[in-house]
Amino acid sequence: MPAATSTAILLAHGPLRERVSAELTGSVYRNGGVIVAHDQYVDHERGHYFTRLEWRLDGSRTARTNLEGALAETLHPLGLSFALYFSDDLPKIALFVSNLSHCLYDILGRWRSREWRIDVPVIVSNKTALADVARRFDVEFRHFPITPESKAEQERKQIALLRERGVELIVLARYMQVLGPEITAAFPNGIVNIHHAFLPAFPGAKPYHAAYRRGVKIIGATSHYVTEDLDAGPIIEQDVIRVGHATPVAEMIRIGRDLEKVVLARAIWAHLQRKVIVDEARTVVFA
Amino acid sequence: MPAATSTAILLAHGPLRERVSAELTGSVYRNGGVIVAHDQYVDHERGHYFTRLEWRLDGSRTARTNLEGALAETLHPLGLSFALYFSDDLPKIALFVSNLSHCLYDILGRWRSREWRIDVPVIVSNKTALADVARRFDVEFRHFPITPESKAEQERKQIALLRERGVELIVLARYMQVLGPEITAAFPNGIVNIHHAFLPAFPGAKPYHAAYRRGVKIIGATSHYVTEDLDAGPIIEQDVIRVGHATPVAEMIRIGRDLEKVVLARAIWAHLQRKVIVDEARTVVFA
Amino acid sequence: MPAATSTAILLAHGPLRERVSAELTGSVYRNGGVIVAHDQYVDHERGHYFTRLEWRLDGSRTARTNLEGALAETLHPLGLSFALYFSDDLPKIALFVSNLSHCLYDILGRWRSREWRIDVPVIVSNKTALADVARRFDVEFRHFPITPESKAEQERKQIALLRERGVELIVLARYMQVLGPEITAAFPNGIVNIHHAFLPAFPGAKPYHAAYRRGVKIIGATSHYVTEDLDAGPIIEQDVIRVGHATPVAEMIRIGRDLEKVVLARAIWAHLQRKVIVDEARTVVFA
Amino acid sequence: MPAATSTAILLAHGPLRERVSAELTGSVYRNGGVIVAHDQYVDHERGHYFTRLEWRLDGSRTARTNLEGALAETLHPLGLSFALYFSDDLPKIALFVSNLSHCLYDILGRWRSREWRIDVPVIVSNKTALADVARRFDVEFRHFPITPESKAEQERKQIALLRERGVELIVLARYMQVLGPEITAAFPNGIVNIHHAFLPAFPGAKPYHAAYRRGVKIIGATSHYVTEDLDAGPIIEQDVIRVGHATPVAEMIRIGRDLEKVVLARAIWAHLQRKVIVDEARTVVFA
Repeated sequence: MPAATSTAILLAHGPLRERVSAELTGSVYRNGGVIVAHDQYVDHERGHYFTRLEWRLDGSRTARTNLEGALAETLHPLGLSFALYFSDDLPKIALFVSNLSHCLYDILGRWRSREWRIDVPVIVSNKTALADVARRFDVEFRHFPITPESKAEQERKQIALLRERGVELIVLARYMQVLGPEITAAFPNGIVNIHHAFLPAFPGAKPYHAAYRRGVKIIGATSHYVTEDLDAGPIIEQDVIRVGHATPVAEMIRIGRDLEKVVLARAIWAHLQRKVIVDEARTVVFA
Repeated sequence: MPAATSTAILLAHGPLRERVSAELTGSVYRNGGVIVAHDQYVDHERGHYFTRLEWRLDGSRTARTNLEGALAETLHPLGLSFALYFSDDLPKIALFVSNLSHCLYDILGRWRSREWRIDVPVIVSNKTALADVARRFDVEFRHFPITPESKAEQERKQIALLRERGVELIVLARYMQVLGPEITAAFPNGIVNIHHAFLPAFPGAKPYHAAYRRGVKIIGATSHYVTEDLDAGPIIEQDVIRVGHATPVAEMIRIGRDLEKVVLARAIWAHLQRKVIVDEARTVVFA
Repeated sequence: MPAATSTAILLAHGPLRERVSAELTGSVYRNGGVIVAHDQYVDHERGHYFTRLEWRLDGSRTARTNLEGALAETLHPLGLSFALYFSDDLPKIALFVSNLSHCLYDILGRWRSREWRIDVPVIVSNKTALADVARRFDVEFRHFPITPESKAEQERKQIALLRERGVELIVLARYMQVLGPEITAAFPNGIVNIHHAFLPAFPGAKPYHAAYRRGVKIIGATSHYVTEDLDAGPIIEQDVIRVGHATPVAEMIRIGRDLEKVVLARAIWAHLQRKVIVDEARTVVFA
Repeated sequence: MPAATSTAILLAHGPLRERVSAELTGSVYRNGGVIVAHDQYVDHERGHYFTRLEWRLDGSRTARTNLEGALAETLHPLGLSFALYFSDDLPKIALFVSNLSHCLYDILGRWRSREWRIDVPVIVSNKTALADVARRFDVEFRHFPITPESKAEQERKQIALLRERGVELIVLARYMQVLGPEITAAFPNGIVNIHHAFLPAFPGAKPYHAAYRRGVKIIGATSHYVTEDLDAGPIIEQDVIRVGHATPVAEMIRIGRDLEKVVLARAIWAHLQRKVIVDEARTVVFA
């Protein structure tokens, strides 16, 4: 959904100071920017400030390439870390899949219908089952078979491929393979996974079977950034659905699919709208 | 909510056989009963049959006191375990509380407003803070201070008190004390607890703090039967509510209260309507 | 998701009689059928009985073509209306669309990924915008431009096309054109629509705009059978999502898309699993 | 839940101007206030700014009685309307009830358990059924029988009583009597009602019966400010719960009670936390 006008989006956080908000907006105003969104969150206990500021570029008196430097002059004295994005940059996303296609179809449909303004230069898989889905949507499909012995080497090749294609975000769309430390280190806060359970309940394999055995009355799905520690990365989005004693595992798997694809899509959307700031083990997700 | 007409309620389960449903209903019809509800659930994988059958007593040709024996003649040859209840029996419930009153007020209000047809002969507490709530609702309040040394002895006294008062169900309404093995053994499937988290996530103490640290986007509450294994008993009911990065622990605790009292109330209601069958680690809860 | 074994599915309803359930199951048993699911609902106020009975065909002693007649002999004396389905029949579905593609992509993905065992012989549209989606999924796309003058004639052609292709279910996947009386009469309980509001709130056009103006805190979607009276047909499924004062109409439209596609998919699934019985203005939807 | 420290809370709104946020916070800082919460919402379409600003009074250099005047000097030149509250003022609430007690018990329990820092000087009723609930909670109960002829006169007496008791908020806790124009005019945005349906669906009497007839799959409750136009006032909070074909009206009424009391409590809480700004037919409710 392309904005009518290009905007700059600033994500910043750091120690709360008295005039931090006024300094930030003032710096945009002075440059001729028209603010279209300004979200702030203060963790009062820790005295930490988080913000997302979005302004139109059309009246800006600073060239786009100088903007980051200009902002650094305002933000660094305030002790703020920040990242700057432009709404008209086209985020390049790689999809990692195995045998299950529901998240893949969902993401490709959002892309091809222009619901999402993204580019998907490549689909990566440790299996071949979904090659024809890639073909249907005219995307390159790359097969990386992985064994315990080949894993590190294959992932190094994956990293090279992703770098070459300019990928900024990896989406694990029910990719049934734990990522190694090199690839997670190469894309910090740049890999989004969908886990088919309400984390921290039921981490690991076969969560629907575990949920059935425990007799829970609600099942869930969790989308999170991938860190080295499996299923423990910062959570971006979760949702749940009610089940009952008469819901067998096969039916949980079936209704879970819709949950998984919607939760994953919401997490990707929040990331792409530059609405997520990772705050150690947690996330700030602006509305 | 007293039924216009008294009914008998049968909860039964056992191996699935071809004519088990027809045998059961036939046996009621032959006795002159008019069926008002008949719920069934079949676990096809294990070949196990569960049912709840409710019929009006007014046309019954079998005296109430003979009904259990008459049913046994039909059900035991079918290999069914069963329990028989009468809708006009007044269930006697003991409430166990500590310092938090939201579940206590909620249950007492449902009782005194006649939303629930129950009797609450006694409130048991390891603290004295809620004695005046008991007084406001005209219920006896019994204080059992508990130390590691006195615990077994105090719980023996509690069991004696509950037996004397004819209590059939103990409700732990945010009772901050782990029950010992004697009392859990004395009331099998007869103690309902509310845990302020979405089990199996965040068992044990201070679950809202743990939820905050993990950065979950949804918090929950779980009502379950109490077994010897803390927070691992069969779940009766769960519900959740959405939170965000800006929801501090204190606010989770506040909004969690409404969740806890509603989830606990639903579990008690299902139990009292004789809609729950415990099936090993799980429950069957008829709608 | 093809069942391992073919089954017959009976949907029946009629006046509640004492042995109706036993008669039904007995008739299946006598024919050598193994029951795999048996759902029942009794509207006690009206004394009306509804059931869904599913049994394996592999041991059946009655030929498939004789089954309907054999069942009629049991069911008609009981006053029951019924319909018989076979799980291995491939339901033929026509998709009606206009300019919005999210429901279309979703349904086509479920079909091509074999999540749903269906056939989609044709996509019908009053616009041309989605022709390339049809092409991507290798489905015939038929354009029927509609003006007030041509409408009746065009719909007659649509009916002819659908009949020729053996279509049993029409899905209005955000089809922006009110159906005329001939086509609704031609497919009784055979047209499923998705309305982007929580009916009966906000019927008609631009419901998200109306929801915004009214300041509701929750928006919804409704899937229903189409009858002559617009937006008043029997509801199959509904769901909702929370919004707030800061959710502009454009954002409601965006998040509503996910709601619409999931609600529509659930309704289609229930219909295809033969779990829906229309009961005048309402539906019985077995779990 | 008394705050450790007294705070001032400002609710303000008006045309969006470039430095409105900085002016507001600057004015607080200059007075020695420490800001503990600052929520803002901008309706970009209309260019309208809404804010809730809360700061500690302990360091304030302006006497409490002069604060409103001091703020006016800053806010009026900016074109902002505003209201000022102090967290240590004890809001006086009158409860209007008829025969149903679930909301009444719930509110009184929250008050007496000190979950809410309020005072309830009087319960007003057009019936006598709930006089003993008032007695149980030690609140004055005033009976105003109302006939078409006596209505205007009785409501005038109610207004006089409420004024005398310093009531700032009237809560219609399932009060089954439409308020006349005088009393609604006397308490603008000062009367909160709970309607037992998901408005705008099913306004008026017997909404659960209407919901059953329409066959909806979800029922709801709505809390809103009362205006002259019945059931059309600005919505503060709504929530829903899933029902099915097998949920009779009596069961909807039963499960609806929990929904009603929780939705009403959330609306009252938001109002009392000074988190609600009425924006014509809508509300801004800060999180």
